[in-house]
Amino acid sequence: MGATKIRLCVSEDLGAGQTVPLSRDHAHYLFSVMRLAAGDSIFVFNGRDGEWRAEVTEAGKKTGALLLREQTAPQHMPPDLWLLFAPIKKARTDFIVEKATEMGAAKILPISTEFTNSDRINRDRLQAHAVEAAEQCGGTFVPEVGELSRLDRIISDWPKDRRLMFCDEALVGARASLMAAGPATKWAIVIGPEGGFSDAERTRLQALDYVTPVSLGPRILRADTAAVAALTLWQTVLGDW
Amino acid sequence: MGATKIRLCVSEDLGAGQTVPLSRDHAHYLFSVMRLAAGDSIFVFNGRDGEWRAEVTEAGKKTGALLLREQTAPQHMPPDLWLLFAPIKKARTDFIVEKATEMGAAKILPISTEFTNSDRINRDRLQAHAVEAAEQCGGTFVPEVGELSRLDRIISDWPKDRRLMFCDEALVGARASLMAAGPATKWAIVIGPEGGFSDAERTRLQALDYVTPVSLGPRILRADTAAVAALTLWQTVLGDW
Repeated sequence: MGATKIRLCVSEDLGAGQTVPLSRDHAHYLFSVMRLAAGDSIFVFNGRDGEWRAEVTEAGKKTGALLLREQTAPQHMPPDLWLLFAPIKKARTDFIVEKATEMGAAKILPISTEFTNSDRINRDRLQAHAVEAAEQCGGTFVPEVGELSRLDRIISDWPKDRRLMFCDEALVGARASLMAAGPATKWAIVIGPEGGFSDAERTRLQALDYVTPVSLGPRILRADTAAVAALTLWQTVLGDW
Repeated sequence: MGATKIRLCVSEDLGAGQTVPLSRDHAHYLFSVMRLAAGDSIFVFNGRDGEWRAEVTEAGKKTGALLLREQTAPQHMPPDLWLLFAPIKKARTDFIVEKATEMGAAKILPISTEFTNSDRINRDRLQAHAVEAAEQCGGTFVPEVGELSRLDRIISDWPKDRRLMFCDEALVGARASLMAAGPATKWAIVIGPEGGFSDAERTRLQALDYVTPVSLGPRILRADTAAVAALTLWQTVLGDW
């Protein structure tokens, strides 16, 4: 949904009249793939300074530069929501990162659990997916993708001012429990692997006072569906939708 | 999420003591792929009679039979919710059908709109995807996938007792508008193509008295994300979650 315009995430600070040098990858994309030339406009953001219209001032095969003209959108930060999920098959893991970015997660944390299907991730590749999703969805923010961490370690070091929405198929009542959880502004969502949480993990999670158990309906959802459903639920009840 | 058990969707009526002959595909899957033998148990459903435990009584290379033992789950019908969506790239269209089945849509209707990216679908393949998703998600119901229809024709023939949730990025306010829409029990959701709806389509949809416009947040969602988000929103506010 939505018309396409070329948007790039860059690392430089952005301001009127500034020049932004292009990376080799960006120059290749703009000039070889998209066939832009000097004088054409694109849009850039860096996660801090909003979105800017930028004019191509130099278009080489492997290099190039942009001149920033005017800000076209203010910086929009997502709510302070983390998504914790157990990596699954490659395509579905990519999908979760893409969706979490589109749907406005602030941080994406891959976790390993007792029944995790995959115990390795390529963090850089997942981070690149998040950047691409932000470029495509019109956002001005890119969530950080963390290194794979063990769920039990994350729980041991949990920041006590952050609530955790625990999505489990063994529960009932979606919206009500979330609405009753109170006015915390820092949240996280945790989604289990395809094999579900172990009984030990379930018991431990439910006993924590910062945990809000939430059901995602009477059918069993795949982990990728559960991630999108949980993000929607949170965003519509407590977030910026 | 959830442990795996072998579940098959069959066409026969189901009842205690009945014998169910296996199709060639099912026999191949059970006996060559999954290596089951006579005496093993699986679970079957047909969309009408709930879920049954079935014992393998005959296991050939291309044929086989099951004996129905006892009902293990009652028939669970989803709410009367249709999902209308404009087909996109193949993998993402497959994904929408899979997700709509998992999330409890009653009917899936591919539509062509002014900016539809794809004007052809393979209905049988999409229907097979819905069957497979129902087998995997533990449901007892398989939504019917319709033939590709033009949005303007569907609107012309619209059943007046069915409300339509119109998801558009140009809108604000997700939950509130849905909650205010009143107590209709028959609903449909319409999701546009990657290019969005045309101005004419937008104007026409918004003018219809059975349409409830709904926003899906401040970021632009891909069509497949929008489908899952809209289904979640509807299910948590008005459905069976």
